[in-house]
Amino acid sequence: MKRDLIKKLTDISGRENVLISDEDRICYSFDATGRTGIPDIVVKPKVADDVSEIVKIAHKEGIPIVPRGAGTGFAGGSIPIHGGIALVMTDMNHLVDLDGENMIAVVEPGMVTYNFQQEVEKRGLFYPPDPASLKVCTIGGNAGTCAGGPRAIKYGVTRDYILGLDVVLPYGEMLHTGVRTAKGVVGYDLTRLMVGSEGTLGVITRLNVRLIPLPEAIKTALAVFKKIDDASNSISKIIASRILPSSLEFMDQAAIGCVENYIHAGLPRDAEAILLIEVDGDEISVERQIAKIGEICSHSGAGEVRIAKNDTEREFLWNARRAVSPALGHLAPTKINEDITVPRNRVPDIIRRLKQISEKYRLNIVNFGHAGDGNIHVNIMTDRRNEEEMKRADEAVGEIFKATLELKGTISGEHGIGITKSRYIKDELGETGIEVTKRIKRVFDPNNIMNPGKILDHM
Amino acid sequence: MKRDLIKKLTDISGRENVLISDEDRICYSFDATGRTGIPDIVVKPKVADDVSEIVKIAHKEGIPIVPRGAGTGFAGGSIPIHGGIALVMTDMNHLVDLDGENMIAVVEPGMVTYNFQQEVEKRGLFYPPDPASLKVCTIGGNAGTCAGGPRAIKYGVTRDYILGLDVVLPYGEMLHTGVRTAKGVVGYDLTRLMVGSEGTLGVITRLNVRLIPLPEAIKTALAVFKKIDDASNSISKIIASRILPSSLEFMDQAAIGCVENYIHAGLPRDAEAILLIEVDGDEISVERQIAKIGEICSHSGAGEVRIAKNDTEREFLWNARRAVSPALGHLAPTKINEDITVPRNRVPDIIRRLKQISEKYRLNIVNFGHAGDGNIHVNIMTDRRNEEEMKRADEAVGEIFKATLELKGTISGEHGIGITKSRYIKDELGETGIEVTKRIKRVFDPNNIMNPGKILDHM
Repeated sequence: MKRDLIKKLTDISGRENVLISDEDRICYSFDATGRTGIPDIVVKPKVADDVSEIVKIAHKEGIPIVPRGAGTGFAGGSIPIHGGIALVMTDMNHLVDLDGENMIAVVEPGMVTYNFQQEVEKRGLFYPPDPASLKVCTIGGNAGTCAGGPRAIKYGVTRDYILGLDVVLPYGEMLHTGVRTAKGVVGYDLTRLMVGSEGTLGVITRLNVRLIPLPEAIKTALAVFKKIDDASNSISKIIASRILPSSLEFMDQAAIGCVENYIHAGLPRDAEAILLIEVDGDEISVERQIAKIGEICSHSGAGEVRIAKNDTEREFLWNARRAVSPALGHLAPTKINEDITVPRNRVPDIIRRLKQISEKYRLNIVNFGHAGDGNIHVNIMTDRRNEEEMKRADEAVGEIFKATLELKGTISGEHGIGITKSRYIKDELGETGIEVTKRIKRVFDPNNIMNPGKILDHM
Repeated sequence: MKRDLIKKLTDISGRENVLISDEDRICYSFDATGRTGIPDIVVKPKVADDVSEIVKIAHKEGIPIVPRGAGTGFAGGSIPIHGGIALVMTDMNHLVDLDGENMIAVVEPGMVTYNFQQEVEKRGLFYPPDPASLKVCTIGGNAGTCAGGPRAIKYGVTRDYILGLDVVLPYGEMLHTGVRTAKGVVGYDLTRLMVGSEGTLGVITRLNVRLIPLPEAIKTALAVFKKIDDASNSISKIIASRILPSSLEFMDQAAIGCVENYIHAGLPRDAEAILLIEVDGDEISVERQIAKIGEICSHSGAGEVRIAKNDTEREFLWNARRAVSPALGHLAPTKINEDITVPRNRVPDIIRRLKQISEKYRLNIVNFGHAGDGNIHVNIMTDRRNEEEMKRADEAVGEIFKATLELKGTISGEHGIGITKSRYIKDELGETGIEVTKRIKRVFDPNNIMNPGKILDHM
């Protein structure tokens, strides 16, 4: 059977695009969670028609299809936990059309997000979504998970920029959703139903993307707070002053310490919080806004406010924030990274709760993220080999999600559910939400071949 | 049977909220299209639990439920074409919560959009969607149709502001979708599936709405063009100069003449196009931007550019644009209003095609709308009593939609499908799109009681 399948797939995609060696299959077995599931076969399609043919075979023979971009996800969404075909979309990576006048791009899913941004910026245009992995991840993967990033506070997330999609459905038919215009309300919003569905409803083969004019200027400030409540108050006051920053990033005390150990950036270890605040727009207004933000932070208890005078200084400030992730790698071998989101003004509450949970379960928890959205990346630093500690970490995750929902938050702001959070979604979606989700999944994919076992554990 | 039903409904909602007289039923039989369908019973629920009870009865007894806001739609979406229960949501009109710090409002569907905007603006916050009917229409109706408006070019449409919903499903269960936070990606995007579904998947009983800071200042310009291509070039150049106006409105020659006959605003009748351009943001940048816009228009062939110096002058400029709709009422008794959308730079092409169609079918067609989005309101001025002319108008509509799709546009930018456009959606969505839409409808509403006959003609 497998041999026969390999033949069919090579007939469609060519021998060089069907990978069956152990080495190759292992390369597409994991994502950023470190969990694994080895696919039976890896296929790298070049065109949408081939995707359609491949899916038709999989549908007929009941073989799982796991669509995959760069595999940078934090929820296990692209791991072939039930084997089957890993459908690696990275060779479908062309910018099909860049229509500057209409500020619309047509792009294939495998294009790296950063490369796409560079292309559109050459034309004075802007694609804001900026997940941390943007230099590696693909725009198709971003659509699959509805990726966010620091700029979401002002510019929204991936769903806000996807106008239309080409999708190969689990039967192999091609569905065109949405529009190539600024507006469109014809029929149900199948575009946004696909965005964030983590490849469980179909394979995205093309995206119509909305672009906006590239802002003229950017200004960046870093503010250091002894007390986390002062940082939170600053955020509220900035927004109350009618300034909507393009980024409003946060590091807690553990994250600051961690970065200091790693790059010695001169951050004060006794600070409970650091905010990195960025504004964009035209030259004059960003100057005014960053000055006002500096004042607000100083008046609200910031011990220190640094405003970058140029790009070099801006890079220096961002380096502190960007160093958190690599610094964590030096802290412990295993990082459990959750991306809870609470109402913006409940960030101090959730940070306090996280501290209690950290103490209760004797775990090292480092927090940073997008304070402007209330989207906190909670990193439990542990060691997969220590079973007892992993058990504590697992219990802590449950408690973190419970605290998040009590504060009217959500258990995932931008990473998605995949396999790591599917146990918990009933607490957020409720019985009816789960039932509706299952019904939609069944109507699209009755044989459950499309990324099975993701989002909903048991279909 | 009907008597029995009335008894059940009055038991739930109270005698005063169940209307059965002819006069009352006629009041809820039409929308802005002028088409009618008389409901058997009108119910005005006060709370979500009552909606759930009413829907349970309807589901059990197979009675159509037609959710309705203010009935200002332009596609017949709220007309009870199959009788049944008109579920009038206008008494559920409370602002449940206005959380300024988190920039989130919780509101009931019957609240008038303008009233909602006024409330949030008192707190320095902003809810941008601004359909023309905003002083009458409801925010629930806006969500049902995914309403737009002039500000969509910069700020997007209703879907971009709805974070979460309470929805009574066609079985009567209550579904909570989405979040009360800035971000959230847990499960399928049921929120946006509901937005724009025109009441065919459930009844919205509560909305979580995202707000943004209210811009500090607004500046407005009006530019008069002899040639429509010059107007179009101006739009391209404005956007290429990295300015994203908050409105970019358009009137064609017929609309200008129509307004002149009506209010004598001093507009030149030989102009092929007038643009009304507005920018918002902080004081200094709007001053700079409007000056630059004025320059661009002048250099691109505008015969005249007026920039409003104050609110009074701003109102004066908007009056010309706002006068189009009432002026049309004086032109002919029946207005067929379509809201096609094409890529922004194809506006001159579609206007030329509309002129040809107007001549071919000997029809008076007046065009205006949101040029920045490529969203043109095409008004065929006719008389319902003239059957022969109505037949020509009907054929013209088909041709207009064909031209729109040829230009890679969409047949509805913001009005929705309702009953008036359901004949045409297959041309845009394709067979697969229709099939998926039908499947989703069936899974939510197997008995087809929820706004039957809308969007999809034959279920």
